[in-house]
Amino acid sequence: MINFQYENPAKIIFGKGVIAKVGEEAKRYGAVKVLLVAGGGSIKRNGVYAQVVESLGKAGIDYCELWGIQPNPLLDKVEEGARICRSQGINFVLAVGGGSVIDTAKAIGVAASNEGNVWDYYMGIRSTIDHCLPIGVVLTIPAAGSETSYASVITNSDGNFKRGIHDNIIIPKFAIMDPQTTYSLSQYQMVCGLSDILAHLMERYFTNVEGTELTDRMIEAVCVTVINNALKALKNPTDYDTRAEIMLAATFAHNNSLDCGRIGDWGSHNVEHELSGSYNIAHGAGLSIIFPAWMKYVWKTNPARFVNFGKNVWGITSDTNDTEICVEQTIHRLEDWYKQLGLPTRLSDIGIDDSQFETMANRALKNRESGIGQFVKLKKDDIISIFKLAL
Amino acid sequence: MINFQYENPAKIIFGKGVIAKVGEEAKRYGAVKVLLVAGGGSIKRNGVYAQVVESLGKAGIDYCELWGIQPNPLLDKVEEGARICRSQGINFVLAVGGGSVIDTAKAIGVAASNEGNVWDYYMGIRSTIDHCLPIGVVLTIPAAGSETSYASVITNSDGNFKRGIHDNIIIPKFAIMDPQTTYSLSQYQMVCGLSDILAHLMERYFTNVEGTELTDRMIEAVCVTVINNALKALKNPTDYDTRAEIMLAATFAHNNSLDCGRIGDWGSHNVEHELSGSYNIAHGAGLSIIFPAWMKYVWKTNPARFVNFGKNVWGITSDTNDTEICVEQTIHRLEDWYKQLGLPTRLSDIGIDDSQFETMANRALKNRESGIGQFVKLKKDDIISIFKLAL
Repeated sequence: MINFQYENPAKIIFGKGVIAKVGEEAKRYGAVKVLLVAGGGSIKRNGVYAQVVESLGKAGIDYCELWGIQPNPLLDKVEEGARICRSQGINFVLAVGGGSVIDTAKAIGVAASNEGNVWDYYMGIRSTIDHCLPIGVVLTIPAAGSETSYASVITNSDGNFKRGIHDNIIIPKFAIMDPQTTYSLSQYQMVCGLSDILAHLMERYFTNVEGTELTDRMIEAVCVTVINNALKALKNPTDYDTRAEIMLAATFAHNNSLDCGRIGDWGSHNVEHELSGSYNIAHGAGLSIIFPAWMKYVWKTNPARFVNFGKNVWGITSDTNDTEICVEQTIHRLEDWYKQLGLPTRLSDIGIDDSQFETMANRALKNRESGIGQFVKLKKDDIISIFKLAL
Repeated sequence: MINFQYENPAKIIFGKGVIAKVGEEAKRYGAVKVLLVAGGGSIKRNGVYAQVVESLGKAGIDYCELWGIQPNPLLDKVEEGARICRSQGINFVLAVGGGSVIDTAKAIGVAASNEGNVWDYYMGIRSTIDHCLPIGVVLTIPAAGSETSYASVITNSDGNFKRGIHDNIIIPKFAIMDPQTTYSLSQYQMVCGLSDILAHLMERYFTNVEGTELTDRMIEAVCVTVINNALKALKNPTDYDTRAEIMLAATFAHNNSLDCGRIGDWGSHNVEHELSGSYNIAHGAGLSIIFPAWMKYVWKTNPARFVNFGKNVWGITSDTNDTEICVEQTIHRLEDWYKQLGLPTRLSDIGIDDSQFETMANRALKNRESGIGQFVKLKKDDIISIFKLAL
C-alpha cells in the first residue's frame, strides 16, 4: 500500500423527495444569487426543475439560468456561464443534471473566480486553482460521479481537446440525489451511465501497487452491485431500490475513497476522451469500445490482477489454471455485458474507421508526452494499437 | 434503501512517516496553542511523542499535555482537560493514541467550548452541541474508528454509566495514520482492536432495512479483509501491508459511509458498554463475549441476513439449505475466530458471574426506556437473556 491523503467533504442528501432541500442547503453555504446550470430541458419535463425553483424561492434565493449543456460539454458554455456570474453577481453555482452539467458548473466556478484563461488549467499550463465559487448539485443521471468528485472534464471546440482538471477545491458542497429522477432517463442514457460507472471502478482496480486487499475487495463489491442491477434497472425503470443502488454506486465509484493507498490507471478514459471529443459520441459508449481493447493490449503486464477481476467480479471459475483462458473469458464476459445493455464494443459498430487514429493518438499525448495511463504508460504506438484492437 | 444524509469531512493522511505532517496540518486549522492528549506513556517509548513534538515545534505551535487517559476513559479526565483548555487559552485538541484518547479529546473539545455540564450530552439530557474546539488525531491503535467518526464514548465513574454522543461537530479535522506505530502494540491490544473493528461492521450489517445490496457487499468486503489479516498481523507484527490493511479497515468500518441507506443495530455495543463500564474490561474483549450471545438470541428475527453473513463473510457453503445449521456454523466460526485471537467468548472466561445482570440491564435502559438496538429492540428481559447466553 502506498502513502495517500484522502478527504471528501461533500455532503450527500439521498432519497425520495430530497430535492425540496436544495434551497436551504444552498443557503447554508452562503448562496444569495445562484446560477442554475442545466442541459437540454429534460428537467422541465420530469418535474425536477419545478422542485428546484420552488425550493430556491422558499429559501429566498435569487437565480439566473444557463441552459443547453450537452454531453461532452464545451468550453464556450463555461465562458458564457462565467460571464453571467461576473455580470450578475452570482455567488453560488447549482448544477441540475448529470456529469456534463456538473463538470460545466465546476468549470464556471473556477472561471468566474480566477483571473486568466480557465482552459489553461485543463491543458495543464496552470496548476494551482486558488478560488472556486461554491458548487451544489441536484443529480439526475447516475454515471459520471462528478456530484462528489474533484474532477471536471471539458471539451475545447477549437481543437477537439477533451481534458480534465483535478482539485479538491471544485468538490461540490452538497449533492442532492433522488433516485426517482432517473426513472425518466432513456435506456441509452442509463446504459452509457452504467458503462461509465463500471469504467471508473475498473480504472481504479487495475493497478500495479501491491498490498491493496481492502480497496480491491471494496471495488469488487461495487462492481458486482453495478453489474447485478444494470439489467434489472432497464427491465423495471421505476424500481426504486434498483435505481438507488446504481445511483449510490456511481457516487462511491468516483468519490476517491476507493483510491486509498493505490494508483488508478485512467489510460482507457484518456484514450476514450479522444474518441468522444472527436466524434461526439457518448462517453459511456466510447468506454465500452475502448476498455476491452485496452484489456487485450495490457493484460500480460499483470495477469494475476485480471484473473482476480475475472474470479471476484465475474465469477469465472472454470479453466482458472490457464491464465490466458481465464483472462479471455473475463474480457468476453465484460463485452457480453456491454452487448446485453445495447452498448457498442467495436468502433465499427458506430461507423468509426481508422482514419483519425494517428491524429487522436497525437492529441492524447499533447502536454503529456511521457505517456497516458499508470498500469501501462501508453505512448503513441500503444494508443494506435488499442484503437486497432477496437476496430 | 432508506433516505439518508452523509458527510465526513475528516482528512486522512496515511502512510510511512506521515506523523511529521502534524504541525503543518494543525496550523492549517488555526492551531496556536494545542492540548496534546495521550495515554499511559507508550507513545514516549515507541517514538511517536518525539515525532509529534518535533513537528509541532517546527510549525511554531505551543502546547500543553494531558496524560493518563485509560481504556474506558473517564469523565474526570475530560473535565481536567477542559479546565486546562480554558485556563491556558488552548484553541486545538490533539489526540495522540487510540479510541480512548480520541474520545476524550472530543469530549474535551465539547466541554471546553460549551456552557453547562458536558455529561448532560452523554446522558441525552442535552442534544444540540453548538461548539467544539477543532480536533486532530495521530492514531496509534487501529480499533475504535474514532479518528474519523462522529462519536465519543465516556464513562462516568460516579454511576458506572458508559455513554456516547454522536454529532458531526466532533469529527476530527484530520487523522494522521502511520501503520508502523502499531508495530509496538501488545498482542492483547491488537486483538481487542480487531474485535472492535469487526463489531462495528457487524453492528452495521445486521439491519432489517431492505434494498441494501451495495453497502452489504462493501461491509462484507471490509469484514473479510479484517478476518484475513488478523492472524497474519499477530504472527508478523512488522509486516507493513498487513498492519496498513487493518488500520484502513478500522477507519472505513466506522466513518459512517457504510451506513448509507440503512440503519445499524448497536444493541451489542450498548450491552457491552455496561460490561466494560462495570468491570473495566477491554471493550473488544466484552464484544467478543456479547456479540455471539446477541446473535444466538436474535437471529430468528431475520435468518436470511445471518445466512448471507455466513456465506459471504465466512464462506459457509455446506448445509446451507438448513438455515439453523448455517446460522449455528456462522456463530461458531465467529467464536472460533475470537478464540484463535485469544479473546474470551464467555463471561466465565474472565470470571464474571450473574450477580450484576439486573443492575447492568437497568443501567443500559436508563434514559432509553424504549429499548436498545434496532435489529431487535432489547428490553430488560432481553438484555438479561443475552447476558445469560454469554455465561
